[in-house]
Amino acid sequence: MALHDLDIARRATLRRITDLARERLGINEAQLVPYGHHKAKIALPYLQSLTERPDGQLILVTATSPTPAGEGKTTTSIGLADAMNLLGHKAVLALREPSIGPVFGMKGGAAGGGRAQVGPMEDINLHFTGDFHAIALAHNLLAAMIDNHIHQGNALGIDVRRVFWRRVVDMNDRALRQITVGLGGPGNGYPREAGFDIVAASEVMAIFCLATSLADLKARLGRIVVAETRDRQPVTAADLKAHGAMAVLLKDALAPNLVQTLENNPALLHGGPFGNIAHGCNSLIATRAALKLGDYAITEAGFGADLGAEKFIDIKCRLAGLQPSAAVLVTTVRALKMHGGVPKDALGSENLAALEQGMANLDRHLHNLREGFGLPCVVAINHFVTDTDAEIALLQNRVALRGVPCAVSRHWAEGGAGATDLARAVVALCDQAPPKTPRFSYADADSLWDKLTQLARTVYGAARVTASPEAEARIAQWQAQGWGHLPVCVAKTQYSFSTDPKLLGAPSGHTLHVREARLSAGAGFVVMVCGDIMTMPGLPVHPGAEGMDIDDAGQVTGLY
Amino acid sequence: MALHDLDIARRATLRRITDLARERLGINEAQLVPYGHHKAKIALPYLQSLTERPDGQLILVTATSPTPAGEGKTTTSIGLADAMNLLGHKAVLALREPSIGPVFGMKGGAAGGGRAQVGPMEDINLHFTGDFHAIALAHNLLAAMIDNHIHQGNALGIDVRRVFWRRVVDMNDRALRQITVGLGGPGNGYPREAGFDIVAASEVMAIFCLATSLADLKARLGRIVVAETRDRQPVTAADLKAHGAMAVLLKDALAPNLVQTLENNPALLHGGPFGNIAHGCNSLIATRAALKLGDYAITEAGFGADLGAEKFIDIKCRLAGLQPSAAVLVTTVRALKMHGGVPKDALGSENLAALEQGMANLDRHLHNLREGFGLPCVVAINHFVTDTDAEIALLQNRVALRGVPCAVSRHWAEGGAGATDLARAVVALCDQAPPKTPRFSYADADSLWDKLTQLARTVYGAARVTASPEAEARIAQWQAQGWGHLPVCVAKTQYSFSTDPKLLGAPSGHTLHVREARLSAGAGFVVMVCGDIMTMPGLPVHPGAEGMDIDDAGQVTGLY
Repeated sequence: MALHDLDIARRATLRRITDLARERLGINEAQLVPYGHHKAKIALPYLQSLTERPDGQLILVTATSPTPAGEGKTTTSIGLADAMNLLGHKAVLALREPSIGPVFGMKGGAAGGGRAQVGPMEDINLHFTGDFHAIALAHNLLAAMIDNHIHQGNALGIDVRRVFWRRVVDMNDRALRQITVGLGGPGNGYPREAGFDIVAASEVMAIFCLATSLADLKARLGRIVVAETRDRQPVTAADLKAHGAMAVLLKDALAPNLVQTLENNPALLHGGPFGNIAHGCNSLIATRAALKLGDYAITEAGFGADLGAEKFIDIKCRLAGLQPSAAVLVTTVRALKMHGGVPKDALGSENLAALEQGMANLDRHLHNLREGFGLPCVVAINHFVTDTDAEIALLQNRVALRGVPCAVSRHWAEGGAGATDLARAVVALCDQAPPKTPRFSYADADSLWDKLTQLARTVYGAARVTASPEAEARIAQWQAQGWGHLPVCVAKTQYSFSTDPKLLGAPSGHTLHVREARLSAGAGFVVMVCGDIMTMPGLPVHPGAEGMDIDDAGQVTGLY
Repeated sequence: MALHDLDIARRATLRRITDLARERLGINEAQLVPYGHHKAKIALPYLQSLTERPDGQLILVTATSPTPAGEGKTTTSIGLADAMNLLGHKAVLALREPSIGPVFGMKGGAAGGGRAQVGPMEDINLHFTGDFHAIALAHNLLAAMIDNHIHQGNALGIDVRRVFWRRVVDMNDRALRQITVGLGGPGNGYPREAGFDIVAASEVMAIFCLATSLADLKARLGRIVVAETRDRQPVTAADLKAHGAMAVLLKDALAPNLVQTLENNPALLHGGPFGNIAHGCNSLIATRAALKLGDYAITEAGFGADLGAEKFIDIKCRLAGLQPSAAVLVTTVRALKMHGGVPKDALGSENLAALEQGMANLDRHLHNLREGFGLPCVVAINHFVTDTDAEIALLQNRVALRGVPCAVSRHWAEGGAGATDLARAVVALCDQAPPKTPRFSYADADSLWDKLTQLARTVYGAARVTASPEAEARIAQWQAQGWGHLPVCVAKTQYSFSTDPKLLGAPSGHTLHVREARLSAGAGFVVMVCGDIMTMPGLPVHPGAEGMDIDDAGQVTGLY
């Protein structure tokens, strides 16, 4: 019988984090800020002291376009790290930390799965070290200061119809998506339309994950554009004198969180921005820490490679000068069969023809990663029990024909021992050539519109880009106001290279339509919203919360 | 020059909390859950293992009716604990933890002041160990589950016009006091009126502070009445199956927080409910822990003794069977002069006549504590630099004439050394007689209305009690529905024994008017709202946040 992830997690023995940090990373207790006995933050001054230490090699784990069948990027990252450590390499994970809200909805926890998990699982899926809470409060302090400024005389002349800054809560609460605030009379301020997003969608989260230091964090917070004046001039957080206090609220959170895999290997879990309206990677500070602390730093980018890897390269690597040594493209037989046209309920049956057809999706991603970004690649086939030998053999063969290394990984069932082939392939790839700066999809100096167009053509295979009149006007406005140097961040469905989630495989010739544009001046990108993007999930008919319980001894049930 | 509290706090040397716990309380590291090096939670199973250990003596610190001049309950509690430890007694503090929201408004921090502080001051005033965040999320999970239940078919038949459960955020945000949620079409649920309170006002906070164990916490959460059906039947959190998940969110927070005074004496800071719509005391679990860990447990109740001490006795002691040994009634020359009619800007000048007149307030509180609740009392005169010798002498003399011990305390300027007279007086009082159960203002079996009437007459000196028709109907309804056995919790101004904040001194013959009644079935009391009670503060013209900053090295400024 299959064990629940929580059961597997509970059977594992976690080491005291202070011991693990000392023995595995050479960090003594004084440089750690413990949160209980199995979680700790690594003090920022200590990390700064490592500046002169050479970096390890950076490995990006990305995936083919996700399907409901699941591709398993996080478990592959964890399995790969465990396998590399098993082979005697010093590998450190840098991953996103999960959001609490979805844990009570449908999604469940997000700390890996099977034997490829990080722990302590319950803590990581609940409050962890409070980073999301700190981000939420910093975000909401700015919101309160905006409405207070308007209420107290509105010296900056904020147009209450043009306040862009919403509020956040780490909860799936659809009733808060669109609200009216300031009702009840003059004592409660000016009524206006507003709304809440989930914390992962906060620009503060994106800033937190791109900040290079506390000083850079504060500067970015100050640049957030929260509203416009009646004559359409931007109003920033710095104009409201909010950024200093926001940085105060974030000072502890900014230190990265150290936990461990179930095989007692070090993992940094830090930050968790959305992969659509933001760049979907863990904090830059955690990535850099992993590079200093490990010979190999293994990190992950959200969604498929068209969104996750693209933003990792074009936004994060560009900003920070990161030079990834290799990309692991995770795929599954099941997911490729879906891309080949097989409906979800027929995925359990062998279908070589569909698999072959679905490989178009893999090919496009491989092409983008290798020829586009110039990254050495290995394909990781995340093995499922329903995969047949013939399917695996076909997939391996086809990847080999393309001259790309490929490994079957059984980390879910076997942990690191199931991912040693993959680990060897990754190490071999890293040994081939020194890392270099990846090729970006566009240059800083290109206009916002040109950036988008180049990205759409080269990465998505789109034939043309269109925009709503409002989005077009916004993009032109920001170009004129001096934000043209920023990268673009496309928010579109993760299920397809196109904006139509039903167009699986490798569609081309389609149109990318920008419905709305949003300026994230603090994070440092312009979001191009293509299609409907949900920034506040709802709870399902039977929320996961209904099945959760805790007994008198503190034992939790129903948290998966 | 006077130092800011933060400067004084920074000059103090805090001990490692693990060392302090081991050496002073006999708690080893495995029984602690560290949060950094100077804060820790004490594991609940360890505290449960102390059941057979005899309790120390419980000392309640309360005060005369507060005035803008300040009475200094928290600093007196801290100074008293430091002084008792200085004299060789083992005293442990149990205090409320502060709310973050007000730190960014006007109020500033709440970790004592001068040389009578608890530390680490910045941590305590910011996120501390995340208790408030956990309470906020548990509260908001329930809110999301209510609206989701309605959206998904409303099987329980909740009347959307009669949803009592609001949302919370730990921020002063007046724009959220009254809002409309669920706008934007069918996908976002049913539009309805709603609002946010600050976290301290959450019933979850009150429950958290009255729970005797994790099991009791969960049971109380389940009893929360969140709404009514269209035929006016109560809908509870248990009906929504929310209480298990809420308890899961609170499981770590429920362990009390151990920190230290600047003189390195142990202090438990845990929970912080409002003193008006709730009972205003730290968690019962922390109070009980202090009784097990110290020979003397020093705790504090919010506002003046008419509100704080009354609720401490009639709600908390009644529930938990606590037997306080003594009460410390804190007062100041300045506050009594205000009660004697002196305006705030003239408090710096000697005024013996006004002081004598203002003593009426002190007398009424003394009477209530001694003759009413049957508590041995000592008056603590919290010394201010503007107090004249003649004023101090007069006040001491008048208190002595009443046969009540009295001590001048200079803890703000001198720390524990300035409070040794007070400490000796308290110890002497505790030595006189064994503690006994206090006299309650009313019996459990009295009706809700009779409880309120008795309380109003004996404690407030009111001549009569009236209620709005709606409040009257509500009280009658709850009496009929089986909540008549609960204590009442009066929400009224803290500035006067009456409901008129301008009636200083010791008014009598007034009318207590109940504007609104609220059922806190989970916490276990019925709130009688008399006058306007603000459950969501606003920010001032210049919020404290505007002056806060952090430098590149992480040094915070502007946090007082």
